[in-house]
Amino acid sequence: MAAQGVTPRSEDYSRWYTDVVKMADLADNAPVRGCMIIKPYGYELWESIKTALDVRFKATGHRNAYFPLFIPMSFITKEAEHVEGFKPELAVVTHGGGKELEEPLVVRPTSETVIGHAYADWVQSYRDLPILINQWANVVRWEMRPRLFLRTTEFLWQEGHTAHATEAEAREETLSILDQYADVAINECAIPVIKGRKSDQEKFAGAAESYTIEGMMGNTWALQSGTSHFLGQNFAKAFGIQYLDENNELQYAWTTSWGVSTRMVGGVVMAHGDDKGLRLPPRLAPYQVVLTPIWKTDEDRETVFGFAKLVNDRLCDVGVRTHVDEREGLSPGFKFNDWEMRGVPVRLEIGPRDVAGESVMAARRDVPGKEGKQVIPVGELATRIPELLDDIQAGMLQAATEFRDAHLFEASSYDELKEQVADGWSLIWHCGTPECEDRIKEETKASSRCFPLSENSEWHPEGATCAVCGKPAFGKAFFARAY
Amino acid sequence: MAAQGVTPRSEDYSRWYTDVVKMADLADNAPVRGCMIIKPYGYELWESIKTALDVRFKATGHRNAYFPLFIPMSFITKEAEHVEGFKPELAVVTHGGGKELEEPLVVRPTSETVIGHAYADWVQSYRDLPILINQWANVVRWEMRPRLFLRTTEFLWQEGHTAHATEAEAREETLSILDQYADVAINECAIPVIKGRKSDQEKFAGAAESYTIEGMMGNTWALQSGTSHFLGQNFAKAFGIQYLDENNELQYAWTTSWGVSTRMVGGVVMAHGDDKGLRLPPRLAPYQVVLTPIWKTDEDRETVFGFAKLVNDRLCDVGVRTHVDEREGLSPGFKFNDWEMRGVPVRLEIGPRDVAGESVMAARRDVPGKEGKQVIPVGELATRIPELLDDIQAGMLQAATEFRDAHLFEASSYDELKEQVADGWSLIWHCGTPECEDRIKEETKASSRCFPLSENSEWHPEGATCAVCGKPAFGKAFFARAY
Repeated sequence: MAAQGVTPRSEDYSRWYTDVVKMADLADNAPVRGCMIIKPYGYELWESIKTALDVRFKATGHRNAYFPLFIPMSFITKEAEHVEGFKPELAVVTHGGGKELEEPLVVRPTSETVIGHAYADWVQSYRDLPILINQWANVVRWEMRPRLFLRTTEFLWQEGHTAHATEAEAREETLSILDQYADVAINECAIPVIKGRKSDQEKFAGAAESYTIEGMMGNTWALQSGTSHFLGQNFAKAFGIQYLDENNELQYAWTTSWGVSTRMVGGVVMAHGDDKGLRLPPRLAPYQVVLTPIWKTDEDRETVFGFAKLVNDRLCDVGVRTHVDEREGLSPGFKFNDWEMRGVPVRLEIGPRDVAGESVMAARRDVPGKEGKQVIPVGELATRIPELLDDIQAGMLQAATEFRDAHLFEASSYDELKEQVADGWSLIWHCGTPECEDRIKEETKASSRCFPLSENSEWHPEGATCAVCGKPAFGKAFFARAY
Repeated sequence: MAAQGVTPRSEDYSRWYTDVVKMADLADNAPVRGCMIIKPYGYELWESIKTALDVRFKATGHRNAYFPLFIPMSFITKEAEHVEGFKPELAVVTHGGGKELEEPLVVRPTSETVIGHAYADWVQSYRDLPILINQWANVVRWEMRPRLFLRTTEFLWQEGHTAHATEAEAREETLSILDQYADVAINECAIPVIKGRKSDQEKFAGAAESYTIEGMMGNTWALQSGTSHFLGQNFAKAFGIQYLDENNELQYAWTTSWGVSTRMVGGVVMAHGDDKGLRLPPRLAPYQVVLTPIWKTDEDRETVFGFAKLVNDRLCDVGVRTHVDEREGLSPGFKFNDWEMRGVPVRLEIGPRDVAGESVMAARRDVPGKEGKQVIPVGELATRIPELLDDIQAGMLQAATEFRDAHLFEASSYDELKEQVADGWSLIWHCGTPECEDRIKEETKASSRCFPLSENSEWHPEGATCAVCGKPAFGKAFFARAY
């Protein structure tokens, strides 16, 4: 049964998503169309993702910095493909300090240009390379069909920008970051993403090659959840990032850029949520365990709250993130539904009988009904709750992987693809040309997601042909409906 | 002797500041006038300040959230004083997605309006209060005379916004946050700030009362380093933040707002820096200890690097933030100067003789020459380095406090004030009127900093009169040159 106020997923997935985001208090629409307010619970989820990424970036030698929000319009136009890709989405500041500006300023849609300009200044010699910088920032891309978290005019993200002396090093960086993204998606978000290369049409405007992690949502649609771009020397040439090599010869640097955004929060909602609301992987959950004291009389109240405090202290001591629901005037049933809506992995019910038995009743969010309940004696909380959380994390990843694998298909003909994309992702020999992609999109609504790295040991393999148009294949690509 | 490329403080304090910010690699000017690029070393310093604040906010029940960058122009004009204060500084987006917008959007200069609008929606009953929210964000205020960190068109900050059922609670919040700000400034940044109330003219546009922490810089000028505002019901009335109280009567909420920005980084530079560059308090320093291996032959190199690794591991194990300077082709003297410029609290010199003696030579940044040097045996590193860092932290606060106290004066007449503000801050009975403040500013260049809380047990004390104009005094105020 769906939670009150939530449209069942089977009835309307899109409305279900919006209902859950709002009822779980993750986010709300802002007064300016396309923008959003990320509420504390949603922001805390983002903070978990942010920390997981930040730790990995720093462990691999990247440092955070901050580049300006405003970019001169002339910068955007320096890289030909880049301007073409971003121009329709720009927000433009024309007035500042009460005056009309001589040159309009673009609110950054991404920062390759302004960072490229800075790197050109910072890099002189091969000794200045590599530069490994990341920034946490807001960006703006005008959005005609906004969806909370998934597509918003302003969003939060990290954007990494690196410069290297050699092509090999830049390529290695691009793929190393893709691995870090997949690691966070799989092991923190419990979303078994697939790593792959984007087609030419789908790649980042200005990139030589783009790589992606694609996650499968609860309706089998794909969500591009992070991208890592090998920019070649495109931006180095547009902005003059040059260095003197060991032989004192002037060379262009090789650059990369890569980003994960608040869109990932939407991915977590859609990959795991059910008709009762959110289901959060314990490693991301702002509250891993919620304690709900249950009482009727004032005397019970005192006993139960005292016991809850003791339980809470035990859990905090072993680093579990907890919340005690002390709200008055709400029934236990209401509270249980409320925390299920918010996706808290474990609920501890603490009533007078639990106090007497020196134990608590633990209920898993991921396993409904009696099967998900167990009594845990107080003395065992410090070991069993962390174990239970690990178990839930592993179980959610397993369930998502099984769901994904049940909806991954391989097609040997266009007809097969057409059938398969109605219920999942279809892997097929594909030429990678825009014409063929556009045709498939128009006829099936499925777009080219990526050429998965695990399925393609080489590009343009000898003799392989596109199953749709018959031209030489670039590789095997996944096609799917996508956000 | 000043470091190469740095203007001595005594010659030109303002140029010294800019030289140090650039040579210590903290920040750089952006292509758009008034904006800045915060380089990794400067950003890491900000991250330290950020973490120190964030921990305190969360420990006192505040939660982070994120509100949109763009605010409809009509919002800004809803609170009369607010619009008057901010209108001249606004950056305005007039075009988005290739079209002219129906209503221009303001790039947030601060978020009281857009957050007030949201709170009006979120608050219905007294049960919904208090709301204790903070956001980490960028804001834009058009700046005619920009200075890196101190005044930039775009800057990073946190802005807290709370709503309460009662005036008393909102007042308590305002001052509790001021205490948290002072705690971070004093105990993390080693800047002995003075807490005080702003005059009516100097208060935040739209606030009922503004409170500030004011720090003394190395040239005795004051730097407003954080502000906490009691907004009364001004914004609640402008945006309709109303709740039903326990008697089912409709009431306006009481709100506060408070902020600390990247300006604090500039404060750390100016409060502690000397002619050799930055001096960073250990609690903020991105690198608390830098290890500089010294070698001539390849054989030495191997031994020295091996030993440096061992030393580094010992320090990392006890949570010390370290950096090993492995750069080739630079003399030890160059490296020493370089790390002095960057203000690293402790430098460890590791040469072949140190390896042989199983010890390192530790040099304090805050105590120049032989006096600041000591030999530490490897076996004692894990205890002595953390002690040394604590000692430096305490020493820097003490030195800054002594410097401050030597430049705090009390004046009984306007003539005395005139003399005193040439060399420090002058405390004087003051009416608090704009006319009197403007006159003092014009004649002495000193502005009203604050009515220090420690010197004023009541406002408008019976019989006290302004030492300048003779009108009834509001209290004793500090006047000083300020940034």
